[in-house]
Amino acid sequence: MPLARTPDPPYWAVIFTSLRTPVDDAGYVQTAGDMEALAGQQPGYLGIESGARDADGLGITVSYWASEEAILAWRRHADHLAAQRAGRDTWYRAYELRVARVERAYGFVKGA
Amino acid sequence: MPLARTPDPPYWAVIFTSLRTPVDDAGYVQTAGDMEALAGQQPGYLGIESGARDADGLGITVSYWASEEAILAWRRHADHLAAQRAGRDTWYRAYELRVARVERAYGFVKGA
Repeated sequence: MPLARTPDPPYWAVIFTSLRTPVDDAGYVQTAGDMEALAGQQPGYLGIESGARDADGLGITVSYWASEEAILAWRRHADHLAAQRAGRDTWYRAYELRVARVERAYGFVKGA
Repeated sequence: MPLARTPDPPYWAVIFTSLRTPVDDAGYVQTAGDMEALAGQQPGYLGIESGARDADGLGITVSYWASEEAILAWRRHADHLAAQRAGRDTWYRAYELRVARVERAYGFVKGA
């Protein structure tokens, strides 16, 4: 995955850090991909970055948004609500979701 | 790595997303570990979360801080400045560093 190309601050970030259960990996991967695609269609979406899980099952996904309202609307999207429920019922041992206002950003590109 | 145990908002997050070069992996891993340990000794440090790199070399590390001043002091720490320089010279193809104020947080622990 490339780095997200976000505008100059201020904008908003949703930092989602989670620990997976060992359950139902195929369903999880499918749903995670579906939610990433669906997020990209929402008003105010600016981009997403997601690494791989470490050996303990920790993964981080950060999505970027133009406003708090856009985050709230996406949080309440029906398909997303169903995925959130499946996440709590089946896929996550624990997670923390942090909503943050990006105040400053510094980029680096080699040779640029 | 476990999830970071952060206090109630507001607090600050530094979202560091990077793409690695294929260069000098042993030196990188050593320095990354040293910087994580050193960050943990700084005033205002609250915690850190770091996943694994994906197939494209994208990795995400988020560190949490009590104030903007704490972030600025860590950014200017001499050993950290040297590591930042090595990062730009050798280890990173590109990165984005975003400083954000965490306004809200929602946690989930299975069975809790």
